Amino acid sequence: MNSYPEIEKAAIYRVIAERRDMRHFSGGKVPEEVLKRILHAAHQAPSVGLMQPWRFVRITSEALRGKIHALVEDERQRTAEAMGERDAEFMKLKVEGVRECGELLVAVLAPDDGTIFGRRTMPEMNLASVACAIQNLWLASRAEGLGMGWVSIFDPDALASLLGIPEGGKPVAILCIGEVEAFYPAPMLQLEGWRNPKPLSELLFENRWKE
Amino acid sequence: MNSYPEIEKAAIYRVIAERRDMRHFSGGKVPEEVLKRILHAAHQAPSVGLMQPWRFVRITSEALRGKIHALVEDERQRTAEAMGERDAEFMKLKVEGVRECGELLVAVLAPDDGTIFGRRTMPEMNLASVACAIQNLWLASRAEGLGMGWVSIFDPDALASLLGIPEGGKPVAILCIGEVEAFYPAPMLQLEGWRNPKPLSELLFENRWKE
Repeated sequence: MNSYPEIEKAAIYRVIAERRDMRHFSGGKVPEEVLKRILHAAHQAPSVGLMQPWRFVRITSEALRGKIHALVEDERQRTAEAMGERDAEFMKLKVEGVRECGELLVAVLAPDDGTIFGRRTMPEMNLASVACAIQNLWLASRAEGLGMGWVSIFDPDALASLLGIPEGGKPVAILCIGEVEAFYPAPMLQLEGWRNPKPLSELLFENRWKE
Repeated sequence: MNSYPEIEKAAIYRVIAERRDMRHFSGGKVPEEVLKRILHAAHQAPSVGLMQPWRFVRITSEALRGKIHALVEDERQRTAEAMGERDAEFMKLKVEGVRECGELLVAVLAPDDGTIFGRRTMPEMNLASVACAIQNLWLASRAEGLGMGWVSIFDPDALASLLGIPEGGKPVAILCIGEVEAFYPAPMLQLEGWRNPKPLSELLFENRWKE
């Protein structure tokens, strides 16, 4: 009885299906009113104990963007070294669009405010709340025709230092947002032959783990 | 140019705004085809390195549901004790709908498969991926007219043991899903006077942290 009309439901399933982790951007600034709308969508996320542990740092300084790109490039090399035999294959992948995207944001897990509600046994639920906010941002961006990529290839301590993030806070995502020529028809890592996704049926159990 | 039509965008912003963390359910089973659709939406979430670290355990055994409720009730008492002066106020809140909801799922963070991509410096990105899947599930549920609540008030080791989850796996959410009489017009913890949310403007910075 509380269901949305079919046309609205279809739009919601569409955006969930068509959202992609984008690394290729075609340039062009994100209009201010669009940025405001998608950030407001992020801010409407659920949060454990209503702690709202997300913070967003908007990067408008080109010099700072360059430094962030250098951090990512540094970690890309280190990740490749840690990959072992797939290092060359990894280095061929495009894993970020930091310099080309229209808008660059850093999502930060705020210093712990001591919330116990829903966190006594699992303090990491604050990270889960930040991830929900980022997923909202992703879906809203896709609806607006904007690509978004979540880059987690960086040293969080180095980025925290660069942005003046206080003790206990942690940057968890460099978010590249902007116009794209086209959205990947499937996850890029799948298209590039890096990894094949598993079907839902393998990940769903009844009453007891079976894997 | 890749933007969705206005009516579709409005539906997506609507569901983001109207999603609530529900604790009050009115009973009634979730139809199988609806459950399939919302789980498929969850499964379309992004994941770091395409690792798809989410697993879902559907609870169909009433005996098991009762045991899960007992776990939550036990942790509710412990949380209240840890709350200090707000313990009585906390105990008056309804923090779960485990017995009343139409469908009960447990979302599990799978044992680490060793994915390095996007995780060398931040291994916890697998939890972020599971949270994105849960947010998809939440939005799809709302569109279908179903309430969903993410309960994180439980001992994860005890729940892992109850469900036979192998070493390294961790249940991170008890998800109560089902029909509701009405959706809260605002977050329940806000309506109950537990905590007031902060506006986005306080959580958004430019180039450098300011708080």
